[in-house]
This record gives sequence, structure tokens and C-alpha cells, in this order.
Amino acid sequence: MLREAIYHRPKNNYAYAYDEETLHILLQTKKNDVEKVSLIYGDPYDWQDEKWNYKSSEMIKSGSTMEYDFWFATVKPEFRRMRYGFHCSDDKESIIYTERGYFEEVPADTAYYFCFPYLNKADVFTPPSWVKDTVWYQIFPERFGNGDPSINPEGTLEWGSTDPTPTNFFGGDFQGVIDHLDHLVELGITGIYFTPIFKAYSNHKYDTIDYMEIDPQFGDKETFRRLVKESHKRGIRVMLDAVFNHSGYYFPPFQDVLKNQENSTYKDWFHIWDYPVTPEPKPNYDTFAFVGSMPKLNTDNPVVKDYLLKVARYWIEDFDIDGWRLDVANEVDHAFWREFRSVVKDAKPDAYILGEIWHDSMPWLQGDQFDAVMNYPFTNGAIDYFGKNEMSAENFASSITNVLHMYPKHVNEVAFNLLDSHDTPRILTLANGNLDRVKLLYLFQLSFIGSPCIYYGDEIGMAGGQDPGCRACMEWDETNQNRDLFEFVKGLIELRKLEPVFGNHADFRMVEANNDQNYIVYEKFHADKTLIFILNNSMDPIQVNLGQYGPCNEWKLEDMS
Amino acid sequence: MLREAIYHRPKNNYAYAYDEETLHILLQTKKNDVEKVSLIYGDPYDWQDEKWNYKSSEMIKSGSTMEYDFWFATVKPEFRRMRYGFHCSDDKESIIYTERGYFEEVPADTAYYFCFPYLNKADVFTPPSWVKDTVWYQIFPERFGNGDPSINPEGTLEWGSTDPTPTNFFGGDFQGVIDHLDHLVELGITGIYFTPIFKAYSNHKYDTIDYMEIDPQFGDKETFRRLVKESHKRGIRVMLDAVFNHSGYYFPPFQDVLKNQENSTYKDWFHIWDYPVTPEPKPNYDTFAFVGSMPKLNTDNPVVKDYLLKVARYWIEDFDIDGWRLDVANEVDHAFWREFRSVVKDAKPDAYILGEIWHDSMPWLQGDQFDAVMNYPFTNGAIDYFGKNEMSAENFASSITNVLHMYPKHVNEVAFNLLDSHDTPRILTLANGNLDRVKLLYLFQLSFIGSPCIYYGDEIGMAGGQDPGCRACMEWDETNQNRDLFEFVKGLIELRKLEPVFGNHADFRMVEANNDQNYIVYEKFHADKTLIFILNNSMDPIQVNLGQYGPCNEWKLEDMS
Repeated sequence: MLREAIYHRPKNNYAYAYDEETLHILLQTKKNDVEKVSLIYGDPYDWQDEKWNYKSSEMIKSGSTMEYDFWFATVKPEFRRMRYGFHCSDDKESIIYTERGYFEEVPADTAYYFCFPYLNKADVFTPPSWVKDTVWYQIFPERFGNGDPSINPEGTLEWGSTDPTPTNFFGGDFQGVIDHLDHLVELGITGIYFTPIFKAYSNHKYDTIDYMEIDPQFGDKETFRRLVKESHKRGIRVMLDAVFNHSGYYFPPFQDVLKNQENSTYKDWFHIWDYPVTPEPKPNYDTFAFVGSMPKLNTDNPVVKDYLLKVARYWIEDFDIDGWRLDVANEVDHAFWREFRSVVKDAKPDAYILGEIWHDSMPWLQGDQFDAVMNYPFTNGAIDYFGKNEMSAENFASSITNVLHMYPKHVNEVAFNLLDSHDTPRILTLANGNLDRVKLLYLFQLSFIGSPCIYYGDEIGMAGGQDPGCRACMEWDETNQNRDLFEFVKGLIELRKLEPVFGNHADFRMVEANNDQNYIVYEKFHADKTLIFILNNSMDPIQVNLGQYGPCNEWKLEDMS
Repeated sequence: MLREAIYHRPKNNYAYAYDEETLHILLQTKKNDVEKVSLIYGDPYDWQDEKWNYKSSEMIKSGSTMEYDFWFATVKPEFRRMRYGFHCSDDKESIIYTERGYFEEVPADTAYYFCFPYLNKADVFTPPSWVKDTVWYQIFPERFGNGDPSINPEGTLEWGSTDPTPTNFFGGDFQGVIDHLDHLVELGITGIYFTPIFKAYSNHKYDTIDYMEIDPQFGDKETFRRLVKESHKRGIRVMLDAVFNHSGYYFPPFQDVLKNQENSTYKDWFHIWDYPVTPEPKPNYDTFAFVGSMPKLNTDNPVVKDYLLKVARYWIEDFDIDGWRLDVANEVDHAFWREFRSVVKDAKPDAYILGEIWHDSMPWLQGDQFDAVMNYPFTNGAIDYFGKNEMSAENFASSITNVLHMYPKHVNEVAFNLLDSHDTPRILTLANGNLDRVKLLYLFQLSFIGSPCIYYGDEIGMAGGQDPGCRACMEWDETNQNRDLFEFVKGLIELRKLEPVFGNHADFRMVEANNDQNYIVYEKFHADKTLIFILNNSMDPIQVNLGQYGPCNEWKLEDMS
């Protein structure tokens, strides 16, 4: 056995409290190297006749990547304490892996073992339960619907009359969203994620001027309150975008600094290097990227902290929103997010906190900061395989298995699984216009573990390249909509609701990845029900022997629409 | 190269902020497998001509265990953001390791790389700086000195007249400590760690009755305040023991529960399974281990939390203590410790928070909970090798290298490095009475990275087995003290102060481990100074070629005493 490939470390994705009484334990070994792994475990204080009273339980192989196998076990320790090790064996040898290394015999001293000291209820990660069953719809408010032309900003263009640019306006607003809520209901949507709605200069509103005010082009607070109410009435939750990493250039505190320089009472709201402060030719203060018009906020300053936490609380308490999506979340300090969580959960215990992080996000998902992150590792694999057909079936199976083993199971269950967004080309464009590929993407996304999100317009076949192309006006003329695609997506969402094992109430396992014929097989299973998914990613028919999966019935997706 | 052995994950011991501007990056590879590793890194937003502007910098091999090599690099990213990957090569191949796996060429897309999103000052782990230069002395107050016989508890035995038992008393008290502070000063001690001093039933006082009162057998609050003042006057800091995981049986809230059962206002202070609550025959409530007289406190209950946090603040603010050692720290919830840290640091920003954890403690050492843990992984290796001579030189070198790579460097620098305690046999006993082995232990401990602690009496050659044997009365008759050992330890502590590279202001690296001759060689180095340590752990003389370390001068330890 290859010892160097064996890995385990407690209190992350390898050992965690799944609920108040259950621990999940995982082990990594080299792929196809170890034949059997048993978990050796017991209460550290449970001794009999001077011998530790341990149990042994076989672990299941929960998945394989190109390099590793993962082994999984569930334990409910009676007194919520556990010491444990791993008994790994193949036909040649048998070793015990512990915190102190490798042994041929089961060590007698519990001090040698890995330790899960105590399953304290206060430390259990508890994301809001509704998220597991939510299907999101992302709306870029300037481009979804113009329901109130009376508040059009100056120079508003006719809806859809031209291509989107970084600076043009089409007058999308809240009334436009309210007018089209039925479209969302018909599709089966149960959550809206709005990109920023607060007062800002640009059409995307990521350059906040006032976090306490609605941008007048979208409507007023009363209209927003009505939008939330109308959504709730239809079983749709509402999540807003919090841009707390940086403010916009016209944020009054930053303007005050530019004006009053060292004498500004707001100078500690930012990270200023020297005076006079100037955005040109290069900003002499911390910014998002190198964008002088997006000065980084000093979230370690108690005054700034109070202000932003007041914002977080205000929109929940006064408008009943259900979640916050956090822009550039990983560039803000962890200490701030811990306080943010405490304020948000105090205002609404089941609010959803979603961080925008494109990378491995374990440090934010320990229960003290976010409930979830935007699951880009999922996105990357799905787009490269189904969307672009640029990844092999085996590599895709490996990357998806890796995604599922990066985080604890309850973190995966509320992961925000997007295929595209206002920051990427649209899926139809990524798929080079191939609608079959878009359907495969949706089938995979909507049968995967997590909380899926549909980018407005994708469901009716809108195309569009990288920003600004992906931000075109929503197409409301049904004759220009791809209704076949709409019905397909709607059908999948229905299935997700009708059959919990199809949806988010099951385990997921890759079963096969065939590079030659370019297909994958995965299963979803819970209790005595298993669904087998066979996705043909090639242009040719494939031949798969269903018999190998035991007796099973076939579901015909094409019958649905 | 063995890809399966390569490991890196950001934001733990593999990638962390060492200070406000410096990142430390580490990589694990299979031992003796990779010849050269370079860090490829840059600012994610720094592009020129549509190409990412990255740098490459060779990493140094910072140590090897039986299985792995560790590679280390220091970077000061100008804008405190970094994407990075690892270029690993040997004579046959060259690969780039990133968050998305392995590549033959340097990937063009920064999204592929590992991410250290932002070095925020608020997240930098900042232990109190004085701890780096502190040499601790652990006092078990019942057994250090009886300075005030007028407060002897009933049945007090004559000092040292008999062996310690789990229940006998010798009248040790604060006046006894004050009387003997000069002994500590002479030895060079700069910190005292007291096992519990609060009102309790037993001689060890881990069964707290009142966290706000001094146990009367030790003195009153005035005496304790004087003890702290007298210690501070001599440059000695004072750390107390907080037993917050569980209370004692006679803790009034628990007594109230036993008396009033379901009607007790304190019933939510504990974790009670059912009524009537009873400690016999088996407790029907959560306990420390299975000890019915040590009911686990419900630290998730806001009232309990307030009470314990008040305790934490009180002894700092009213008595000026310098640190808290936390008993059974890993069985208490993380959420409680986060609040504890915030209260303690508010009361005294440079207070030291030390958790009792015997296992891998990374989850508590991220900057939001403890400053340090009791470094038992260090203890285990040192005792098995130098103390008992039961470990090979190579295994010892491996275990010590592992200890240094388990945590960030600034965590290691304030680790509480003990050789024994009131919970283990004394080192002289562990070493089977061999004083040379005890000297080797001290030499290693006092030249290692961290904050060393001497258990009272060890320095004058006291022996004693597992509790209660290790808790004998301090020997104050100089003719019964091993003054040679005392002078040896005193000399090492002096060296630690005189020569920062001997002490805690250097890097440490194992250079050689020789199983045949049973010796190890390690080096401490900083800037242009390197000290080479050659420790002969055998009973025979050894022959080592000093020339291989370049021109060097010899220090003669035997000249010291």
C-alpha cells in the first residue's frame, strides 16, 4: 500500500459533525491501491479490564478521482466523543493508520489515535433547510423587465433594441420583475438572486453609492417591499447582493476623503497609503483589483463594521429578504464575516449566507461564516465536459468526485450550483449554440447535489458572450423564445420536486466514465431507491448494458414535455 | 514523481499569513522524490499584454519525515493578494501542481491556481510577543511550599513526611510560593503556570466549587494579588488554570440541580438526559470522561457563557494575571472559545491563551481561539527518544520535523513545550533515573522552538511516577537537591537569553539522524549565524565529522556550570 497517499485530518471535510449526533469520517488512499478500509473507533474513556473498548466498522468507497479513492463512514458516538484510526488492507499487508503514523497492530493507547474530542451542538454547521429544495433564478435587474417607464434613467434605450454595452441602459426595474413573476412560477423557481439593487452609478450597480437606498431606476422601497411580498406569496425567496469588499467611487465617505484628504473623518474607512489620495494615474489606496473607482473598505474599522452590519440587518428586518450573496467574499477578513453571520442569523435564523468564492472555500464553511459558496469547481467541470466537450469523461468524473469530497456533505447540499452568470458567457454560447449540450448541462445540474441556479434567459435559449454580451435584455416575445428548452428545464425542476432522490435528498456516486464512447453513468440513492443516470456526451448513439445495474425501470425524459 | 504524495491546501499550516505583509507557503512531496520545487506566484490582477505577470522562486527543503519532504517559501505580495502553484521537477519530468491538478505547462488562466485571496491584518495570528522569550515553571500549589501554616486545611501532614496520595494535604499555599520566588529567579524563570487555585474540594482543585474565590487553603485574594505583584516585580508572568469544560460536584448550581431537579433554575447549566438527575450508579448527564462528580457545563447556554466570561475577565482585570491555561479545551465548543478570546484580549491584549489539547490542534490555532496548545506531540517524541531511549534517531527526527510542520511558524514559536506535568510521571522517572538522559531532555527542550515549561522540582532531580507520585512536596533541603542538575538547567536558560539563535529567535532544522550510533544533529540559524547541535543519545562516545558543517567554533556546555 502506498502510505504517502494516505491522508486524513480531523475537523474539515475529512471528519465533521453532520448533525447533533452524527459524525462523518473520510479517508483518502491512492486509487485502486487499498482493498478494504475499516474504521476503528470508540469512546476514549471506555475501558474494560485495562483494554480500550473499540469497535471496527467497514468503510464504503464513496468515490475515486484520477489519483485517489475516498472511503466514508457514519458514526453516532453514544457520548459524542471519539478516538479513531483506519485499518487498511490489501492481499499483501494490513496496516493501522493513526495520528501517530502507521502500525502493524491496533495500538493499545488511545492517545495514538485521531481525535474528535466532542460533538458540541453549538459547533454543528446548520445551513437553512429550505435551501436544499430551492431552485434559484438569477436576475440582473437592469435587463429583466421594464415595468415602469416613468422611472427610466436618462438615455434609456428601447427594450432589446440594441446589444448591451458596459454603459447603456434599458430601464429594467422591480415592476418589471413583479410583472413577470408568473414566468418564474411556471418554470418552478423558488428563489431569486438579484445582483445589486442599491444606489449606484453603473448599470450593474456593483459600485455602490448608498447601501441603504434602492437605486431610483429600479423603483422605491415600497416597490421593493411589494416585490418581496409578491415573491413570498408565490413561494419564492429573495436574496440580495452585498458588495462589502469595496465601495463605489461616488460613495460619500470616499468622496469626502478625496475632498478633505487627511482631515476627512472617513479616512480610516479605507486603506490609504499616503496623501494626497488620488485615483490617477494609479490609485494610492487599496482597491478591488487595480480599479481606482472601487476602493477597498476597511472592514476592521469598528465604525465601518457597524455601518455594514446595520445594512445587513436593515434589509432583512425591514424588507424580509431571505439571504445575502457576498461579492468578492474571500478578500474581506474572516473576523468581519463571523460578526456578519451572527447579526444576520440573529435577524433571521434561516437566512442564507452565500459567498462569492471561485476557489477551495473550506476556511469559510466551518459553520462560523458562510452557509455556502458559489460552486465554481462544479461549474468548471460541467462546462468543460458537457458544454464545450473539451474534457474527457474520466477527467470529468474525477473532477466531480473531487468537488463532492472537498466539503462536508451538508455543505454540498446547499452549494450554489451555477452554470453561468453575469460574469461569464451564457451556456448556449459556451456550448457553441448546441442546444443538446445545454440540455445535458441542465439535466446534470438539476440532478446534482446542491441548490441549482438558472441565469435569467438561459431557459429560453438566450445566447451571449462574456460581459457585456451575457447581460442582454430578457426576451419576452414568446415566438423568439425556445419553448422546447423551457419545457425541458421546467420538467426537470418538476422531477426534482416530485422525486426527492432525483433532487437533493440522496447520495451521489459516479459509477462509470467511458472515454471511448464519451458517456458517464452516475447514481443517486437513498434508502431502498436508486436512480441510474446515463448521459451520452457524444454525437453518436451509445450501447450500455443496463443489466449490470440490476433489475430497473426506465424513465423516459422525452415523455415529459 | 509520485503525484499522490503531493499535498497543499491554503489557509492552515500550508499557507498562512506570518505577519501583516508576509505569507508562508509550504508543499509536501514524497521523501527524496522531487529534486527541486519552485513557487510560481503573482497578483491575480497583474496582467501585461494579456499574459499573467508571474514570478518563480525556488523553495527550500525545510525538513523531511519518514514519508515526506516539506518545501518552504516566504513571499511578501505587494498588494497582499496571491495566486500560486508549484513547479516540481526531477531529472525525468517537470510538472506544475495547481488547485485544478497537474499540468505540463504553466497554465495561462489564474483561476487554475491556488488562491490566497487577501492578507487582511484582522486575520493575522498575533500571539503575545513576550511568550517567545518566556521560560515557564509549573506549580501545583498544594505541593510547592507551605508558607502560612495558620491556613492549613484539616488533617494537613508535615511537609514531605509521606508520599502523596490522591487525597492527602501538605498545606502548600501562596505564601509558600512568594517565599520561594528567589528559587525561580535564580533558575531564570519568567512565567509561572499554576494548576487550579479556585475553591474546590480536592487537593488538585480541578473540581471547582467557586470560580470567583481563591481556595482558602492557599490564602485570600490579597495574598494572591501580592503573589502576582511580587512575581511581576521579578519579571515573572502568571498564568492560571481555567476548568471550564466541567464544574466540580459541589459547584452550587449543580448541587441546586441535584436538590431541586426539574425545578432548578440551573438545570440548563448542564447537559441532563432525564430526571431525577443522579450521579449513581451511572450519571445521567454529560460528564468529563465518565466521572459523575465532574458534570460538563453547557457553554452554549448564554447564562453559563456570561458567568464564565465574567470569570475570565475578573482575574485579569482585578488581579492582573497574564494568561489562561484551558483545561480539557477541545471538549468545549469553538463558539465559546471565540467569545472567550474576544473577552480576554479586550481585558489584556497581550494575555496568553493556552489550550490543553493532546492531539493535532490546527482548528483551534487559526487566530480566532487559542494562542497555543500544550505541545504533547513534542513531548511524546522527546520522552520516547531521549527519556526512554525507545525510539530510533530517525523516527525521532521524523516526529520532530512533523511537529514543526503541523502548524504555522508563529504558532510553533509560542507552543507550550512541556516534558512532563502533574498528569504524567516525572522525567527522571521516565528516564529510569538516568540523569544524563534528563540533561539531554533539557538541552533539547531549551534549544527547541517554543515556550518551554519546567515542572516544579524536576530541575533539582525529583522523581515520581504517574499521579499521585508526580505530585510530591517540593524538596527545599538543598542537601537533598541535585544542584548539579539545577546549575545545568540554569545554564541552558541563561544561554537561551544570551544567544537568541540558541533560544527562540531562529529557524530549526534536523540535519542528521544516525540510528547505528544513536545520535542526532540539528541546526538553529538566523541571518548569518548557525548553531550546530550534536546530541549523543547512546551510552558510547560517537565520532562525528564536524568539517562537513563548514568552519565552526565549538561551545563547551560543560564549561558552563
